[in-house]
Amino acid sequence: MMIVIMQASATMREKSAVIAWAEDAGCHVHLSEGNERTVIGIVGNGRPLNKEQVERMPGVERVVSVLKPFKIASREFKPENTTFPIGNHMVGGKGIIIMAGPCSVESRSQIIETAHAVKEAGAHILRGGAFKPRTSPYSFQGLGEEGLKYLAEAREETGLPVVTEVMEPALVPLVCEYADILQVGARNMQNYALLHAVGESQHPVLLKRGMSSLIEEWLMCAEYILSHGNTRVMLCERGIRTFEKYTRNTFDINAIAVAKHLSHLPVIADPSHATGRWEYVEAAAKAAVAAGADGLIIEVHPRPEEAMSDGVQSLKPERFAQLVREMKAVAQAVGRDIE
Amino acid sequence: MMIVIMQASATMREKSAVIAWAEDAGCHVHLSEGNERTVIGIVGNGRPLNKEQVERMPGVERVVSVLKPFKIASREFKPENTTFPIGNHMVGGKGIIIMAGPCSVESRSQIIETAHAVKEAGAHILRGGAFKPRTSPYSFQGLGEEGLKYLAEAREETGLPVVTEVMEPALVPLVCEYADILQVGARNMQNYALLHAVGESQHPVLLKRGMSSLIEEWLMCAEYILSHGNTRVMLCERGIRTFEKYTRNTFDINAIAVAKHLSHLPVIADPSHATGRWEYVEAAAKAAVAAGADGLIIEVHPRPEEAMSDGVQSLKPERFAQLVREMKAVAQAVGRDIE
Amino acid sequence: MMIVIMQASATMREKSAVIAWAEDAGCHVHLSEGNERTVIGIVGNGRPLNKEQVERMPGVERVVSVLKPFKIASREFKPENTTFPIGNHMVGGKGIIIMAGPCSVESRSQIIETAHAVKEAGAHILRGGAFKPRTSPYSFQGLGEEGLKYLAEAREETGLPVVTEVMEPALVPLVCEYADILQVGARNMQNYALLHAVGESQHPVLLKRGMSSLIEEWLMCAEYILSHGNTRVMLCERGIRTFEKYTRNTFDINAIAVAKHLSHLPVIADPSHATGRWEYVEAAAKAAVAAGADGLIIEVHPRPEEAMSDGVQSLKPERFAQLVREMKAVAQAVGRDIE
Amino acid sequence: MMIVIMQASATMREKSAVIAWAEDAGCHVHLSEGNERTVIGIVGNGRPLNKEQVERMPGVERVVSVLKPFKIASREFKPENTTFPIGNHMVGGKGIIIMAGPCSVESRSQIIETAHAVKEAGAHILRGGAFKPRTSPYSFQGLGEEGLKYLAEAREETGLPVVTEVMEPALVPLVCEYADILQVGARNMQNYALLHAVGESQHPVLLKRGMSSLIEEWLMCAEYILSHGNTRVMLCERGIRTFEKYTRNTFDINAIAVAKHLSHLPVIADPSHATGRWEYVEAAAKAAVAAGADGLIIEVHPRPEEAMSDGVQSLKPERFAQLVREMKAVAQAVGRDIE
Repeated sequence: MMIVIMQASATMREKSAVIAWAEDAGCHVHLSEGNERTVIGIVGNGRPLNKEQVERMPGVERVVSVLKPFKIASREFKPENTTFPIGNHMVGGKGIIIMAGPCSVESRSQIIETAHAVKEAGAHILRGGAFKPRTSPYSFQGLGEEGLKYLAEAREETGLPVVTEVMEPALVPLVCEYADILQVGARNMQNYALLHAVGESQHPVLLKRGMSSLIEEWLMCAEYILSHGNTRVMLCERGIRTFEKYTRNTFDINAIAVAKHLSHLPVIADPSHATGRWEYVEAAAKAAVAAGADGLIIEVHPRPEEAMSDGVQSLKPERFAQLVREMKAVAQAVGRDIE
Repeated sequence: MMIVIMQASATMREKSAVIAWAEDAGCHVHLSEGNERTVIGIVGNGRPLNKEQVERMPGVERVVSVLKPFKIASREFKPENTTFPIGNHMVGGKGIIIMAGPCSVESRSQIIETAHAVKEAGAHILRGGAFKPRTSPYSFQGLGEEGLKYLAEAREETGLPVVTEVMEPALVPLVCEYADILQVGARNMQNYALLHAVGESQHPVLLKRGMSSLIEEWLMCAEYILSHGNTRVMLCERGIRTFEKYTRNTFDINAIAVAKHLSHLPVIADPSHATGRWEYVEAAAKAAVAAGADGLIIEVHPRPEEAMSDGVQSLKPERFAQLVREMKAVAQAVGRDIE
Repeated sequence: MMIVIMQASATMREKSAVIAWAEDAGCHVHLSEGNERTVIGIVGNGRPLNKEQVERMPGVERVVSVLKPFKIASREFKPENTTFPIGNHMVGGKGIIIMAGPCSVESRSQIIETAHAVKEAGAHILRGGAFKPRTSPYSFQGLGEEGLKYLAEAREETGLPVVTEVMEPALVPLVCEYADILQVGARNMQNYALLHAVGESQHPVLLKRGMSSLIEEWLMCAEYILSHGNTRVMLCERGIRTFEKYTRNTFDINAIAVAKHLSHLPVIADPSHATGRWEYVEAAAKAAVAAGADGLIIEVHPRPEEAMSDGVQSLKPERFAQLVREMKAVAQAVGRDIE
Repeated sequence: MMIVIMQASATMREKSAVIAWAEDAGCHVHLSEGNERTVIGIVGNGRPLNKEQVERMPGVERVVSVLKPFKIASREFKPENTTFPIGNHMVGGKGIIIMAGPCSVESRSQIIETAHAVKEAGAHILRGGAFKPRTSPYSFQGLGEEGLKYLAEAREETGLPVVTEVMEPALVPLVCEYADILQVGARNMQNYALLHAVGESQHPVLLKRGMSSLIEEWLMCAEYILSHGNTRVMLCERGIRTFEKYTRNTFDINAIAVAKHLSHLPVIADPSHATGRWEYVEAAAKAAVAAGADGLIIEVHPRPEEAMSDGVQSLKPERFAQLVREMKAVAQAVGRDIE
């Protein structure tokens, strides 16, 4: 269903061409003639319409799509919240899930030490990067499969399920062997080959919003994954890029409520990337809980000043433990809980 | 204090010219010679240095200011929070202040009805626009002085102090006669003539952040007001303009914590403009409380579907009353309260 | 004329309410019922419709305005280009107008020296700021009326008409005494009191685009001026604020062609602010000519490294003279000329 | 080389810790003590320094990197322009290269017809997408290898070398078989696995700037490719995402001159994506030539209103031919030429 707004100067011939296009496509047409504009409503036949073709027709000023471009991801398709268990915890329900751990897996001892610390502080899931997308080819790129093995060991020791990033389709099977949740990073949100691969994997996915993605585009990327029958998708708001540079990103707190309004998928917030500085992580984390997030993913490092990446935005375990206590209070204030 | 990074190709003569400029300005100079760059540290003499002049000198790659450009507004200047009473309530203290009311004063009965409703729901201050900045010259521009009179009447009936916008220097005295707080709108944040006038008025000021203002620029505008000895300035985060258009603005929740970190001034959040749609106001308001805001300003209208402006983002009184109850719970969870 | 897209879940009662609203407003209604959505077309009665009221009605998903919000500024209202003389030159015609001079008037000798230099290099109009909007209250704020007098003297000596900024309504009469063109700065684009004042002055106006203004908002501000019967308005694209910080602003070169497409008003480009660094001014200036600009305003200073403001983006007179020669060649290549 | 700005409140112990860190890393330290701040200059030992670790140390306010993060891509590394032949034409020299063709290869006849048309109009290289990154999983995703075969056939018929997008590392060898230039799309600019793969391929690469990439990040991605010894990299500016939505993207014309200033690599402009509407492509294309672009990539379709993608921004062959004539005139005006 589309609405075609004709230019004021559009001729009868141009209007007729649009109507003919619509009828050829098997659509119904509604015509509204105002003093200054003609508007043509095109009611489809079930198949998607190629809006761009109409936009390019002579005399057309603009075309408005009536329907949202995503389907399976939408609340209209599935009104109730999507929930599913990860380990012993349910994602998308009343309980809020806490994922925590270092930016990068740096060594066996570092990840195991951190896993114990975040578990004790109340985290439900361990995060840690084995394959790292880095701006510079000269920066530490992660330990690779070795890092995955350490993550698996940390899981064995603590019982915490593991979320870790996968950066290319060819590595999806490998990462699936070790991880409980596949993270698609912000830079790869529109890496469609990767979306297809994680969709096919049937593994739970944490889909980070791209740094300049519209909420609608983010949901379209979820749709790519869902269209493979993989329903266990979590959306992750991690801040967007704006003119403001005091913080690393601008935390789009509105996006949490909007995504939950438009979609049934759980929404996780990443206050570490959304602020980029540990001093602001706590305020952002509590705000996310108050705004309705279903979970948080927070960077924690035992010695942030020695971290190989993202130390600036990592909390120490004690601060993290304190934050979990504070988030619990906020969760209760908004009718949720953190187990 | 400035740091001058010279180009790799800078000549000895070019370096000497920078040093001579600094010494002529009565500054001390520290030289760091690396393999690839020379860096010149310039330690000032107490007077502001003209960074731009150095940037324009041959061989200079860039100049980094060490000090923040705002002084009186900074926490370094005044480490403890600024607090002051408005009516019977203290702004900037443990209590969170709630300002509420319609976008525009539309009639005597509308503003008085709304004032009673928001008071009953728990608001401490009445908002309402008499002079309205409107994108179109053909839209309702506010009732002007008549609107101010109705606001004053509403204050008399309810005891609620009044905040209203002033749009030009010449009208500051008139607005001061009727209002308890002068609002400087987002579009006028860098209207320096207006900043001078509200600074001289010695009236409390609510300074909205411009829609594309850096946090630093916002604090510089507070500095304009403070530099007239007017210390009762509240900062107001009301959303910034970004690529995301699903919401009217992007609520920069980070900015609350950052502004409180950099400055001693109270920070108020405006979830109505920050989202632009009433469905999302509640999530944003609770998030602001969780993030540390000292107050909120919220649009409330008894019949939003008849509002002459901003009806889309206005809450009905019942929803607002419910929201105040929820915000109270969040406030307590973060160690604050709403009386 | 508006199109109302109802939510999928909208009830018959909600649809009827929208239709009743439209009929009460004296409008015609067209109904399109698709499988998934109902769309209601509202054809107006000549008076502006309050879109926001409909947006707030229950069951409404969104409302699309069919008509552009600006009228007198639009090409539909006036298809042919607006042209008018400034001094001996016609703005908006085949010839491209060059305005040049320092950011600030710093002294009598500085402005007179610069006026001679830019005239000799080929400029048609002298620019120079007497009242300066500065981010910091501690920076040089301009010479004020003294600066205006020096500008008038420079005009007398060289014959170049003068463009200078006016920052508050109360000063419009004073600035009109001395200046040939009133500049409304980017920070004041939506200072509506100022727009009314310059509209009433009947003086030619150079309206800079706000740093985060939509093209449509910029044209609405022109509409404010035009609505006072002041038809001599020039639009000025001076760069917008984006995430990219290597340059001071992002030159929205597209906006030149778009503004000329939507409006009949002349469009001037400001490559100095659009780049913020003199090294890039030349490329931007030539690009603006190639893209169809009707004029340029360029900062020139005899000794940029001593300038009290904007030295970094100011050209020296020799570079400027060379640039004028190069712009002439580009102008000819696109069927324009620079006299 | 880094500059560490300590907080005003930094203790002697905190300063000593930074100095100790630097000395442990084998660096030299320069100390500047001002009245209000201490600044520590750290001169490295040739190996990259981990700026983030220092940023996380207590008492540190911020850290400024003196050196640019890219090396092989920089003009400091290689002052003269990079040039290399594609087919019979030299990229990066005095001549400006024109790439043209449809967004998608839709059929054998369509691409061959278009190839003849753009060749006749003056294009040097044929563009056409076989693998298409599409926002929706339900949109046409390209013909895949079949499309590559048609492109190769078109090359055989016309002699035009072919540029086409590759979207995943596993397909690089296949695309290399058919294409002369590998395009890395905007959405994949930071798909590091893909950058490594095209780097290793030793095939010429057209690297599109990500829609929210800093110029510096774009050059870092070029560095990824260059670091594999693949020196034939072209940068492509295709518009960035901003708040302005009238055009599909905001053409960052400044970025052309900046990229050429910072790097020796050729810079290509894509006016089709940078505007998103065919009406504005011509102005943008001529502006790009005037601003110093080394080439253009332009979407041309024989029947845009039937195109399966991007018809709105595609020129018809006649308009394209006219545009090439106009660009030739602009090229000559700025001392370049189009053969």
